[in-house]
Amino acid sequence: MPSEITKAFLSAFLEYDTVKVVHIKSKKAGIINRITQLVIIVYIIGVAIIYMKGYQTFSSIESSTTTKVKGAAYTNFSTKEFNPHLRNIEDYRRIWDVADYVVPPSESGSFFVTTNIVITSNQTQSTCPEDPEIPGAVCDPNNNTCQAGTPTLLGNGMMTGACVTSDINSKTNVCEIYAWCPVEQDLNPLMRNILDTSNKTYLRGCHYHPRTNPACPIFVLGEIVAEAGEDYDAMATKGGVIAIIIEWDCNFDYDENYCIPKYSFRRLDDPKAKLAKGWNFRFANYFSDNTRSLYKVYGIKYVVIVHGKGGKFNFVPLLINIGSGLGLLAVATVIGDIIVLYVLKKRKYYRSKKFQLAFVEDEEGSCKDKTDLAVRKRKNENCNSDCPETFKLNESQQTK
Amino acid sequence: MPSEITKAFLSAFLEYDTVKVVHIKSKKAGIINRITQLVIIVYIIGVAIIYMKGYQTFSSIESSTTTKVKGAAYTNFSTKEFNPHLRNIEDYRRIWDVADYVVPPSESGSFFVTTNIVITSNQTQSTCPEDPEIPGAVCDPNNNTCQAGTPTLLGNGMMTGACVTSDINSKTNVCEIYAWCPVEQDLNPLMRNILDTSNKTYLRGCHYHPRTNPACPIFVLGEIVAEAGEDYDAMATKGGVIAIIIEWDCNFDYDENYCIPKYSFRRLDDPKAKLAKGWNFRFANYFSDNTRSLYKVYGIKYVVIVHGKGGKFNFVPLLINIGSGLGLLAVATVIGDIIVLYVLKKRKYYRSKKFQLAFVEDEEGSCKDKTDLAVRKRKNENCNSDCPETFKLNESQQTK
Amino acid sequence: MPSEITKAFLSAFLEYDTVKVVHIKSKKAGIINRITQLVIIVYIIGVAIIYMKGYQTFSSIESSTTTKVKGAAYTNFSTKEFNPHLRNIEDYRRIWDVADYVVPPSESGSFFVTTNIVITSNQTQSTCPEDPEIPGAVCDPNNNTCQAGTPTLLGNGMMTGACVTSDINSKTNVCEIYAWCPVEQDLNPLMRNILDTSNKTYLRGCHYHPRTNPACPIFVLGEIVAEAGEDYDAMATKGGVIAIIIEWDCNFDYDENYCIPKYSFRRLDDPKAKLAKGWNFRFANYFSDNTRSLYKVYGIKYVVIVHGKGGKFNFVPLLINIGSGLGLLAVATVIGDIIVLYVLKKRKYYRSKKFQLAFVEDEEGSCKDKTDLAVRKRKNENCNSDCPETFKLNESQQTK
Repeated sequence: MPSEITKAFLSAFLEYDTVKVVHIKSKKAGIINRITQLVIIVYIIGVAIIYMKGYQTFSSIESSTTTKVKGAAYTNFSTKEFNPHLRNIEDYRRIWDVADYVVPPSESGSFFVTTNIVITSNQTQSTCPEDPEIPGAVCDPNNNTCQAGTPTLLGNGMMTGACVTSDINSKTNVCEIYAWCPVEQDLNPLMRNILDTSNKTYLRGCHYHPRTNPACPIFVLGEIVAEAGEDYDAMATKGGVIAIIIEWDCNFDYDENYCIPKYSFRRLDDPKAKLAKGWNFRFANYFSDNTRSLYKVYGIKYVVIVHGKGGKFNFVPLLINIGSGLGLLAVATVIGDIIVLYVLKKRKYYRSKKFQLAFVEDEEGSCKDKTDLAVRKRKNENCNSDCPETFKLNESQQTK
Repeated sequence: MPSEITKAFLSAFLEYDTVKVVHIKSKKAGIINRITQLVIIVYIIGVAIIYMKGYQTFSSIESSTTTKVKGAAYTNFSTKEFNPHLRNIEDYRRIWDVADYVVPPSESGSFFVTTNIVITSNQTQSTCPEDPEIPGAVCDPNNNTCQAGTPTLLGNGMMTGACVTSDINSKTNVCEIYAWCPVEQDLNPLMRNILDTSNKTYLRGCHYHPRTNPACPIFVLGEIVAEAGEDYDAMATKGGVIAIIIEWDCNFDYDENYCIPKYSFRRLDDPKAKLAKGWNFRFANYFSDNTRSLYKVYGIKYVVIVHGKGGKFNFVPLLINIGSGLGLLAVATVIGDIIVLYVLKKRKYYRSKKFQLAFVEDEEGSCKDKTDLAVRKRKNENCNSDCPETFKLNESQQTK
Repeated sequence: MPSEITKAFLSAFLEYDTVKVVHIKSKKAGIINRITQLVIIVYIIGVAIIYMKGYQTFSSIESSTTTKVKGAAYTNFSTKEFNPHLRNIEDYRRIWDVADYVVPPSESGSFFVTTNIVITSNQTQSTCPEDPEIPGAVCDPNNNTCQAGTPTLLGNGMMTGACVTSDINSKTNVCEIYAWCPVEQDLNPLMRNILDTSNKTYLRGCHYHPRTNPACPIFVLGEIVAEAGEDYDAMATKGGVIAIIIEWDCNFDYDENYCIPKYSFRRLDDPKAKLAKGWNFRFANYFSDNTRSLYKVYGIKYVVIVHGKGGKFNFVPLLINIGSGLGLLAVATVIGDIIVLYVLKKRKYYRSKKFQLAFVEDEEGSCKDKTDLAVRKRKNENCNSDCPETFKLNESQQTK
């Protein structure tokens, strides 16, 4: 064995192995084979290489988005429009500019626009009745369950132990708490859309439109919501999340200037969510260490999502595609073989050509000289140029 | 040559090439070959196609996460628990609600919960002694190195040029600075866990549990930290970063409702970091242009990381998997060949069948034993079935 | 047919098919073939497996970055340096520390550093003249176009209906508005670089340098901008976005400690943008529900982008690479075949050896009995064991 391997290795550079091919003259098999190959080649060149840009390497993008919101609104409710359970209508009669309604003022890749608000102005750290809506807040003055020093969980403060009349609902008794007082009345003031979608004629520069101006990066907020297929009024009341999806698909084999983004819009939060529908949060402006105004703001969070890739010609993916394509060409042969060997009328003949039998009944080997005719016959098939010259001579003599 | 190519091209549609196969009757080779093929086919169908969902195309997800934190805490330290070096214990005796301890109030994909704080209340823009801990702040009144108009680097303000007694450590002299005064005493008040993990019975709705309730999106903060394998008390003192990893793995061949997320938790910052251990930052509440309270807050930043993909049946990846699987079947043949050609007793015989020799010893050509020179010349190129009929007849006559 | 298939299936485990190979003794073909194979094998082992780490599975990273900014600055402009159109020079003479110039105080994966500012202090909700720069703000007192109750779009407030003299430009008449008053004078105070790049000798610990200290995570802000190839002064005036790209490429087959990040820096915003050049935003500090100071801040937003992957040895990708490499070896055979069949002098002979013809002229089948010896001879090759035994016997009798 080892000497065989050494010999094989040395002779490897002097010899060349190639697969033996049976060349069949059959129109049917030929045409089917060629058509299959054509389909595969068209797929490789047309789809994998040209359409899917199989000749390019792609790199992902590094992106950051900066956004700017413009516009002001004035909320001057009549008493009729206002929720009568709220005590502080004057707090809501005010002007809102960008520093008021964009909270926080700067975010990476997203911005929040207030569209509804609950204001609790001039809170101080002191004691007051808890909100009766908080679980565990309601108490019975005759059987006081308020535990001094324990927080009202999911509530606003620490119980003082007293059970007092609620300042929100005078028929209820609630635990008194040490907290930022008075506590928030978590009631919707029936405000809607404190931001009007602006009159477009005032916009400087371009103005995004899905068909007529799809590359302009200036949007009317209400139109973004409409493009996402949502109702602005409904969304503004409870809040929500809208994705502004920016798609860059750049081909750097051409000029960089042809690389323009596509915008699309989608609502990301589930308007049918059972839990915590919409989007709101609380923040406070502090006027001293002991005074603040608390805001519960509802609004639309616009999240900018950037997708993208840049392609450039490169040999490696081209070769990989060509290579895998060559591999796929084997499929044509498989189909051709099935037709030739199992479908065509002359299948038995073709099979006899494709398959060479190598049967050995005797344990000893193959190229023995036998006189028996039957054996010789078989030999005729089984013994090839590999057999020693002497044997071949024998054979040709016998053939005579 | 060109006419040959043209002919070859034209005949390409009438002919079909298939590889010649040697059909060997050997139980050993047959069984090993079939078993190898079976393993490969099981791998392709079972693993690559069914288990790895090789019949689906996957698309990545677009996600945005909104989070809400609930609860309030009251920090009423006894003088004993409090760091005696801090001058302002009263600032720390207060109530903390969500608008106080979540800073900033709204972030994309993460939220910060204050768990420890250094308060410096009622700073004004004026002059005061620098913190002696700042490099370059300590000075010698006899050899004043304080340069008026130069900032104390990494410090709090601009030196006035005076060298004064520190208000923090009366034995030290430090440069006087124009800054927000008084400067912060960067000392831990020994506060811990200003947020108690809440009593679960008060939670409305469900409550996340890794085994009993793995799809509920309501978490107790302390349990998130525990799930991440960290100690809440230790982490709350110095701060840190916890990832809430949400994994969506959706199969849209089924109903969308089967698509539920998996939650897992991990600490992302290195608790053994040599530099800037934990997580803290400073912010200020401004009470006038010239008055503010400065807060150095330590806490846990919860970062929500969403992974996910959605799969749907598609022919392209199925074909690619089948194709590459067919390619892998070649491995079975390689193994079979090694057995048949190098291992089996009858290997020499099989090799003689597999390999057909094409040796040309003389430089002139192959078809030896010729009398006619012209014929021999032609033979040189044409020998075999390609040879002209006349020559072939000659040959067969000679063979006789 | 079905019985054929059944037989074929049963015999499949007793037999083995292997491709018949023509073994050609040709130095040229042999050497070219071996060199091609060598190149491919070197590529597979050297490039695909070792260099590209084809033996590892990679997983993406979960990351979160925390940043900390240090330093203070004092802006004490002389009247000469200051924009004479601005009324409030005193507001700009002040100290800036980290709680002042980092807005918002904490962000996920990025931080903003104020480098230029427009201050509008002590605004109240009241009436005042609109900024004459706002489209639609200028009015003619003789032909009053100010509509009471309508907002000045892209402006600061709600028109009261009066047309008054501008407080910014006394020669112009503008609509009076109900807004946060006085309105901002959107003029650059000619401030630059309110943050000096600090003297490095004061830095505690290490200090990043692209060559001498590439793994240190402490940066001087001005050097980050310089590394990104930008001019700090120009960028500080109008603002901009700089990416701090952190690259982790970890090999977990070695010790985790060898896994150190690489830093690089890039400007992400387009300094030649026609629209909204640079980066700025407005925020306000609220001193009561009715008083605030408005800040328009320009600055550099540093966005931290983390790339990375971790590799670990795994059998699956190794096998895939070996498999696809074996596939590529077919290319060597294609090249060898082209040389042997179309280039070498003895190409016709080799072709005759590689291709076995299977022509059938008559429609009826293959194994017809012919009397002519020469034809019969050929048939001897073309007709194989598939032919019925009786016919074969006939043939061998004739051969006698």
